Amino acid sequence: MTAATQFIDARVSRHIGTYSEAVAIPAGATQVVLSGTPGLRPDGTLPEHFAEEAEQASDNVCEALRCAGAQLSDIVQVRSRLTDRDDIDTYVKVRKDVISHRPAYVLAVVPQLIRPGLRLEIEATAVVTHTAAEQHE
Amino acid sequence: MTAATQFIDARVSRHIGTYSEAVAIPAGATQVVLSGTPGLRPDGTLPEHFAEEAEQASDNVCEALRCAGAQLSDIVQVRSRLTDRDDIDTYVKVRKDVISHRPAYVLAVVPQLIRPGLRLEIEATAVVTHTAAEQHE
Amino acid sequence: MTAATQFIDARVSRHIGTYSEAVAIPAGATQVVLSGTPGLRPDGTLPEHFAEEAEQASDNVCEALRCAGAQLSDIVQVRSRLTDRDDIDTYVKVRKDVISHRPAYVLAVVPQLIRPGLRLEIEATAVVTHTAAEQHE
Repeated sequence: MTAATQFIDARVSRHIGTYSEAVAIPAGATQVVLSGTPGLRPDGTLPEHFAEEAEQASDNVCEALRCAGAQLSDIVQVRSRLTDRDDIDTYVKVRKDVISHRPAYVLAVVPQLIRPGLRLEIEATAVVTHTAAEQHE
Repeated sequence: MTAATQFIDARVSRHIGTYSEAVAIPAGATQVVLSGTPGLRPDGTLPEHFAEEAEQASDNVCEALRCAGAQLSDIVQVRSRLTDRDDIDTYVKVRKDVISHRPAYVLAVVPQLIRPGLRLEIEATAVVTHTAAEQHE
Repeated sequence: MTAATQFIDARVSRHIGTYSEAVAIPAGATQVVLSGTPGLRPDGTLPEHFAEEAEQASDNVCEALRCAGAQLSDIVQVRSRLTDRDDIDTYVKVRKDVISHRPAYVLAVVPQLIRPGLRLEIEATAVVTHTAAEQHE
């Protein structure tokens, strides 16, 4: 049987936010790695307001995980890249609404993502015990 | 027997480029993680033109994987960092010539890499069923 | 029995610094992933001088690993993000004092981290054969 994923705090997360400083991914688990996921709508358009872009990106993460047989609660690590430091507070607020457990986190502001105009990409790793393909067998 | 790696599309990659939105790495696989790999020539010099730097970086990725018992087609995730947004199109073109399957991708523009002058670093993760050491046993 | 982690050089690391171009993580190992770890002191204050901030961040990495049942020598990959290119040399010097083996490395300069004022975050992945929970059983 695969051991459970462990979410671990140490000494600095209490001063920063809601996340785990370390996550132990047990041997024998399937890992699902996501690309940097932007907040494009399914029709390819980009929301005008950042809050909606952050919500759409989170929904796209959820959908990509679902297609891989995983869900938001399986996430063990998130790396978020934003292009505007003034959007950090809004992003953190949306993130808390979407992800209620405590994965490991990285956030960085970068000058540009893969396409001009994108203000956010969310990269995530999830751990699951069965993939979609296995579940369909 | 180790299950196959799954490359999964969801809803946004069709609007962005040639990559997988999620990749499921099966339990029981060896992972090869690469450092950020620059486009230095084997003699340590840096190509003058970005296209050549991108080709050299890709070749260096290939060589590092080979030394670890892996190959380009084993790559499941690529993170590319460029210092100039105007080089993105050239990089994407080189990337398509080098990697013909669809790993997960992240691309970000950053102000500087480990050394001034480097315009690109490619970080990659590959999944293999046998490492070089095991193959030599 | 879990195979040993392999640290592999290819052709470019000799021109850049002390790290491995590839690391092969054996199947059957527990992976510990860390959040981006800043150089905050346990009381939440930030050192005035960057060298102390880098030392504190390294100590925080060590403590987070310890809480997860791992140690510095278990690190297989480090991603460092700094906000000021002029701090790179100091960071590399501190890093060499703290980590004496050769994990895979990525370093990027970014305009801002999760909170204004932070000049460094260290993200690391470690590989262990037993987690803290298992050791306490």
